[in-house]
Amino acid sequence: IPISNTTEHGGSEGENNDKFFTHPRNPKALAAYLFAHNHLFYMMELLTGLLLMVLSLSEAPAVPSLRLDVYVHATLELLALVMVAFELCMKLRWLGFHTFIRHKRTMVKTCVLLLQFVEAIVVLIRQTSHLRVTRALRPIFLVDCRYCGAVRRNLRQIFQSLPPFIDILLLLLFFMVIFAILGFCLFSPNTSDPYFNTLENSIVSLFVLLTTANFPDVMMPAYSRNRWSCVFFIVYLSIELYFIMNLLLAVVFDTFNGVEKMKFKSLMLHKRSAIDHAFQLLVSRQRPMGLSLKQFDGLMRFYRPRMSARDRFLTYKALNTAGAPMLSLDDFYKFYEVIGLKWKARRSGEHWFDDLPHTTFLIFKGINLLVKSKAFQYTMCKWTSIISSGFSSSRIVPWSYIVFLTIYGVEVLLKVTGMGPLAYFSSGWNLFDFFVTVFAFLGLIALAFDMEPFYFIVVLRPLQLLRLFKIKQRYRNVLDTMFELFPRMASLGLTLIIFYYSFAIVGMEFFADVVYPNCCNTSTVADSYRQINVTIGNRTVLDEGYYYLNNFDNILSSFVTLFELTVVNNWYITMEGVTSMTTHWSRLYFMTFYIVTMVVMTIIVAFILDAFVFRMNYSRKNKEPLLDPEGKLFEAEVSRDEALATLELYKQTCPGLSSLNSLQGTDTHTRSHSFTNLPQIQEWYAEYSRENLPQSDRSLVERELEIPPPCPDPEPQPNSQGPLSIN
Amino acid sequence: IPISNTTEHGGSEGENNDKFFTHPRNPKALAAYLFAHNHLFYMMELLTGLLLMVLSLSEAPAVPSLRLDVYVHATLELLALVMVAFELCMKLRWLGFHTFIRHKRTMVKTCVLLLQFVEAIVVLIRQTSHLRVTRALRPIFLVDCRYCGAVRRNLRQIFQSLPPFIDILLLLLFFMVIFAILGFCLFSPNTSDPYFNTLENSIVSLFVLLTTANFPDVMMPAYSRNRWSCVFFIVYLSIELYFIMNLLLAVVFDTFNGVEKMKFKSLMLHKRSAIDHAFQLLVSRQRPMGLSLKQFDGLMRFYRPRMSARDRFLTYKALNTAGAPMLSLDDFYKFYEVIGLKWKARRSGEHWFDDLPHTTFLIFKGINLLVKSKAFQYTMCKWTSIISSGFSSSRIVPWSYIVFLTIYGVEVLLKVTGMGPLAYFSSGWNLFDFFVTVFAFLGLIALAFDMEPFYFIVVLRPLQLLRLFKIKQRYRNVLDTMFELFPRMASLGLTLIIFYYSFAIVGMEFFADVVYPNCCNTSTVADSYRQINVTIGNRTVLDEGYYYLNNFDNILSSFVTLFELTVVNNWYITMEGVTSMTTHWSRLYFMTFYIVTMVVMTIIVAFILDAFVFRMNYSRKNKEPLLDPEGKLFEAEVSRDEALATLELYKQTCPGLSSLNSLQGTDTHTRSHSFTNLPQIQEWYAEYSRENLPQSDRSLVERELEIPPPCPDPEPQPNSQGPLSIN
Repeated sequence: IPISNTTEHGGSEGENNDKFFTHPRNPKALAAYLFAHNHLFYMMELLTGLLLMVLSLSEAPAVPSLRLDVYVHATLELLALVMVAFELCMKLRWLGFHTFIRHKRTMVKTCVLLLQFVEAIVVLIRQTSHLRVTRALRPIFLVDCRYCGAVRRNLRQIFQSLPPFIDILLLLLFFMVIFAILGFCLFSPNTSDPYFNTLENSIVSLFVLLTTANFPDVMMPAYSRNRWSCVFFIVYLSIELYFIMNLLLAVVFDTFNGVEKMKFKSLMLHKRSAIDHAFQLLVSRQRPMGLSLKQFDGLMRFYRPRMSARDRFLTYKALNTAGAPMLSLDDFYKFYEVIGLKWKARRSGEHWFDDLPHTTFLIFKGINLLVKSKAFQYTMCKWTSIISSGFSSSRIVPWSYIVFLTIYGVEVLLKVTGMGPLAYFSSGWNLFDFFVTVFAFLGLIALAFDMEPFYFIVVLRPLQLLRLFKIKQRYRNVLDTMFELFPRMASLGLTLIIFYYSFAIVGMEFFADVVYPNCCNTSTVADSYRQINVTIGNRTVLDEGYYYLNNFDNILSSFVTLFELTVVNNWYITMEGVTSMTTHWSRLYFMTFYIVTMVVMTIIVAFILDAFVFRMNYSRKNKEPLLDPEGKLFEAEVSRDEALATLELYKQTCPGLSSLNSLQGTDTHTRSHSFTNLPQIQEWYAEYSRENLPQSDRSLVERELEIPPPCPDPEPQPNSQGPLSIN
Repeated sequence: IPISNTTEHGGSEGENNDKFFTHPRNPKALAAYLFAHNHLFYMMELLTGLLLMVLSLSEAPAVPSLRLDVYVHATLELLALVMVAFELCMKLRWLGFHTFIRHKRTMVKTCVLLLQFVEAIVVLIRQTSHLRVTRALRPIFLVDCRYCGAVRRNLRQIFQSLPPFIDILLLLLFFMVIFAILGFCLFSPNTSDPYFNTLENSIVSLFVLLTTANFPDVMMPAYSRNRWSCVFFIVYLSIELYFIMNLLLAVVFDTFNGVEKMKFKSLMLHKRSAIDHAFQLLVSRQRPMGLSLKQFDGLMRFYRPRMSARDRFLTYKALNTAGAPMLSLDDFYKFYEVIGLKWKARRSGEHWFDDLPHTTFLIFKGINLLVKSKAFQYTMCKWTSIISSGFSSSRIVPWSYIVFLTIYGVEVLLKVTGMGPLAYFSSGWNLFDFFVTVFAFLGLIALAFDMEPFYFIVVLRPLQLLRLFKIKQRYRNVLDTMFELFPRMASLGLTLIIFYYSFAIVGMEFFADVVYPNCCNTSTVADSYRQINVTIGNRTVLDEGYYYLNNFDNILSSFVTLFELTVVNNWYITMEGVTSMTTHWSRLYFMTFYIVTMVVMTIIVAFILDAFVFRMNYSRKNKEPLLDPEGKLFEAEVSRDEALATLELYKQTCPGLSSLNSLQGTDTHTRSHSFTNLPQIQEWYAEYSRENLPQSDRSLVERELEIPPPCPDPEPQPNSQGPLSIN
C-alpha cells in the first residue's frame, strides 16, 4: 500500500507542482498526510481562515449591527487560532521537522500564528483591543489553504513581476522629483499658488498629478499668471502618464508572459519526472517495458478512487494510441492530459426524442428545426429590439410588454422541448435566456400583486437587451471569453480583496473616527467635508460635501473608501482630509496604497491582454471558435467484444458492483441501438478545455519553450522498496 | 532614358508602396512626375499646408498678438490655396485624368480645395469671417504632403482599427445605457441626488463616470442614503472600466499587430514584384540570367544619383553573395535591404591617436583605458549622487557644486581626448553628458554675472541626476528604446495634433467667448467659474475658480483646453460650463472628442506595448542589445586588385572625377596602413537599423507571415519597349 500511495502522491504532486522532498517518508507520516489531504480537512482550513478574516467585522471599530463583546470575539479568535495550530501540527507530523523548517510559507504562518496567539490572549486578559496592526497579516491563513491555490499563484506572479516594475517605478519617481524641483523653482514666487509653495507640496502635487486627480486645478494658478506655464504640465504628463506609465504596462506584460511560460515549462518537466517515477514503480519485473491494463487499473483506483470503471478503461484506451497490449512510457507521458478528460457516450441519434413514436418524433423534429433556424433567431432579436424601444420605467406595464414576454415564454418552452432539456441547459446563452425570462415573469407577478421588496426584479428588465448581442460572432467571442476568464478574474479579484483587507485593517487602526462632518477646516479641501444648512431664498437646503462618508470607521466603510482610492479620481480629497486631521506621514499610507493597487491593476490588465490575444490567435489559427462544443479531439472506439472482455476482467479483479453498472449500461446501450448505428462499435468523445491543449499545440508550445524531449527509454532505476505489485 | 527612369520609379515605388498604375505613362507625364518628385516641391507642399494651418492663429477668434486684418489673412489663404491647386494640376498631368479620378485621397483633397476657395473668396468679398467649420478640414493639405507619410500611415492604422473598436464601444455604451436605466429606477426617488433625476442626466453621469472624472461625487448622495448603493457603482466600474475598457485595448492591440504584419507582408510582396520588373528591364538579351556590375552601376546612378561610386560598388558586392560574375535575380531580391546600409571603412586601428608619435600615443592610450574602465564610470556616478544630495535650490552656489562641475568638465575633456571627438559624439549618452555639463557651466556663468533671463538654465541642474541611470542595463534599454521610438511617437503626436486642430476649429466656431468669469450660474459647476473678492478677517482675497480659462477663445487656448479634456480629469466641469451657456447638444462635441482621443490614445498604448515587447523579445533572442554599435552584419572585403580594377572600369564608363575620389581615397588608405593591417584587404561594415532586419530574422518573419517564396526563374516577359540598354 505505501508504494501505490506514493505513486498516488506522485500523481497529485505532478498536478500541483508540490516539491518531491515534501513526500511522506514513513507510515506514520503517511497517516498524517492522508488525514490532511481530503476535502473535509481543506474545508476546515478554509472556514478557519474565513472566520479569522470575518472577525474584523465585529472587532473594535466594528460595523454597528455586528458588534460583539470583547470576550466573545477574542474567544472565537482563540478557537480559530487553535484550529490553525492543529492543522500546522498535522503538517509537522507529515513533513517531519526538518522539511517543516525549510518550508518558507509554513514558517511565516507559524510565526504569525504565535504572534496572533499572544495578542489574542492579551486582548482577552485586558478585555479591550489595543493597537493591533498585526491583524493585517490574517489573510495569510486564508491564502495558505488548499482551495486558494489560484490566489497564491497570483501573489507569486505579482512578486515575480516586482523587480522590473520597481525599476520603472524608480524612473517614474525620479522624473517626478526632477519636475518637482523644477516646478518649485518656477512657480513658488507666485503666492496665490498653493500647489508649489514648498518642495514637499510640490512633490505631493506632482504625485497626485501622476494620477491626474488634480489636473487642471494644479495648473490653473500658474496658467492664469503666464499662459506658457502649461508647457511644464503638458511635458510632465506626456512623459510620465503617457510614456512611462505605458512602459510600466509593457514591462509587466512582458514579465507576466515570461513567468507564465516558465511556470508552464517547469510544471511540464515536473509532471514528466513524476510520471517517470510512477512508471518505474508500476512496471513489473517480468515486463519492465510496459504497463498492462490491470496495473493501470490498480493505479487509477488509488489515484482517482471515484472514477468509474468505464472511465478508467477509456483512459487506458486513450493513452494506448499504438494499440499495443502494453502501455509504453511514451504513451504514459500523456497521462495528465488524458486524465482531465470527461467521457461522454456518442449519442446514437442527435436528438433526445429519437426513441419516441413516429408522429411525436416528427412534431419534435419540426420544433427542433424551427428553433435552430436563423429566421427564428432573427425574429426573436427583432422582437427584443421592439420591446426595448417600448420600454418605460413607470410601474404601469404596457400590454406590448406582456405580449412579448409571453412570446419569450413560448420561445423558452419551444427550445426546451425542441432541443431537449439537457442540450438546452448546457449552453450558457440558453441559461441566460431562461433566467432573464423567468425573472421578467417574476417581476410581472411582483408588480401584479404589488410586492414592494421584489421591485428590484423589474429593474433587471433592460438586461433583456443583452439577447441582441448573441447574433454577432465578435460579441459571442467576447462574451464567451468573458465567461471563460471569469474564474481567473475572480481569483485576481480575491487577491485584490486580500490587499484591501490588510490596508483596511491598517487604515482602521490609524484613521478610525478621524474624519467627520465639518472637520478638516485647516486643509484646502474643507469644502468637501462641509455639512451646513444654507438658506437660499426661503428654503433651507442642506449643503453637503459628503466626503466625511469616505472614512475608515469600520471594515465595510474602509473597503468602499479603498475602492474609491483605487479608482483614483479625487482620491487626494480623502488623503488631504485625513492628513489634516493626523500627521503628514499619513500620506505615506495613501501613496503606498496607490502604488500597490497600480501594480495589481497593471497585472490584471496584462492578464486580460494576454488571455485575449492568446484566444484570438488561437481561434484564428484553428479557424474555428475555441468553445465549439463539437470540438472533439480524443475519441475512443470500443467494440462490443472488447467491452465484454473488459467486463470479464473487472469481474475477476474487482467484485464491487457499482463500478460495473456503467460499463454494463454501455454494453446494453450499444446493443439497443445496434439497428440504427454501426453494429458493435461505440464511440466516445471527450471535451477539452484550455488547460488540455490538443496535442499539436502542446508540442508547439514545448518547442517554443525549449523543453527537452523525454528520454525515450530510461534504465530502470534501482528501487529500494523491493518488488512491486498492485494490491 | 524613359526606360531607366521607369526602373528608377519602380525603385522608389517599391520602397513607398505606390501603386503600379500610378506610374507616368508618357514623356510629358514623366516630366511632370520628375517635377513633382523632388525635395523642393515636397518642401513647397509642406510649407503650403503649414501656412494654411497656421493661418487660424490670426483668423477671427485670433490670438491677440497675432491678429491680422481680414483682407490680409484671406489673401494669404487664397495664395496658399492657389499653390495647392498648382500642385494638384501637376499631379493631374502626371497621373492622367483617369487615374486622378480613381485616386480617392486626391479627389477628397480636390473637393475640399474647391470648398475652401469659395469660402475664402466669400470672406474676401464680405470682409468678415462667417461660420467656417470647414476650416477643420485644413489638415488634409498637410497630411497629403510627401513628408507626412508617417502621419498618413497612422491615420490609416487608426481607421483600420476602427471596426473592432466600434464593436466593443457599442458593448460599452450598451452596458452604460442599461446601468443608466437601472440607476434612474433606483436613485431618482432621492430628490437630493442631482445625478440621476432624469434619464438624460443619468446617462451623462454614467458616461462621465466611465472616465472616472466624477467618481466618488456621483455616488455620494445615494451612498449617504443607503450604504449598499455603492454596490451599483462598484459593479458598474468593474464591468465598464476594468473589464471592457481593457478589452478595448486588447482588441486594438491585436488589430494593430495584425495590420502591421499585413502591411509588412504587402510591402514585401510589392517590393519583390518591383524588383522583378526592374530585373526584367535591366538584363540584356545576351545574358538574360544575370546583371553585370556595369548594368547595376547604371541603375544606381539613376536611382540614387548622389550615391558615391564606392558605395555603389560595395552595394553590388554585398548583393553578390555567391561571388559570381553576374548578379542573379535571387541576389537582386535583397536590393532594398542592402540599399539602406551605410558603409564605413573598417578602421585599421581602434583609436584616433594611432597615427600619433609614440609618447603621445601612450598618454592618450592611458586616458582611453581610464575613461573606459568601470571604476571611472562608478566614481563619476558616485559623485553625481553626492552632488544631488548637496543640491540646494537657493541662488547661492555651494563650493562643492563648483568643484564637482569642474570634475565633470575634466571628465568631458578626458573623454573627448581619450575616445576621439568622433567616437565621443556618436553616442547619445555622451552627447547628453556634454550638454548637461555645458548647460551647468552656462548656468553658473549666468549666476555669476546675474543675468536674469538665463536662470532657467539653473533650473535644469537636477537633470544631472539622469546620469545615474546609465549604469543599469534595463535603464539603458528603456532609455535607448525611448530614443528609438521617438520618431514614431512624434508622428503619433502629430496625428493627435491634427485631430486637436480639427476639434479646436469646431470648438472655436461654436464656443468662442462662451465662458467668462462668474458665468454658468445655472449649472452645478458654477463654483469653478467664480471670480469674486472675499474678505477673510481683514484681508481681501480673490476667490478664483479659474475654469473660465479653459475656453475656446483662440486656437492656443483651445489646444490647452483640449489637452485638459484628453487627460479627462474634471473634464465634465468644462463640459457642463459650456453646456450651461449654450445648448444640451454641446455635450455631443465633448463626448465625441473623448471617444476620438480614447481611440488615438489606445492606439498609442498598443503601439508602445508592441514596440517594447518586440524589442525585448528581440534582444532576448539575440542575447545582445539591439543597438550595440558593434553589431555588424553586412561585411564586404575589397582586395586592392579588385579596387584598382573597379577604378579602371569607372574611369572608362564615367569620366566624372567627383565619384572617383572616394574610391581612390580608399585605395590610398589601404596602402598607407598596409604595414599594421592585413595587406591588400580592406573590410567594410554597415550598421543596420530595425527596418533592416538581419537576414535570419527576416526569413523568420516571412515564414510567420506566410509570404510565398519568390518564383526562382520567371520566364522573361514580353517587353513592349524593345531592346534594353543603360544610358
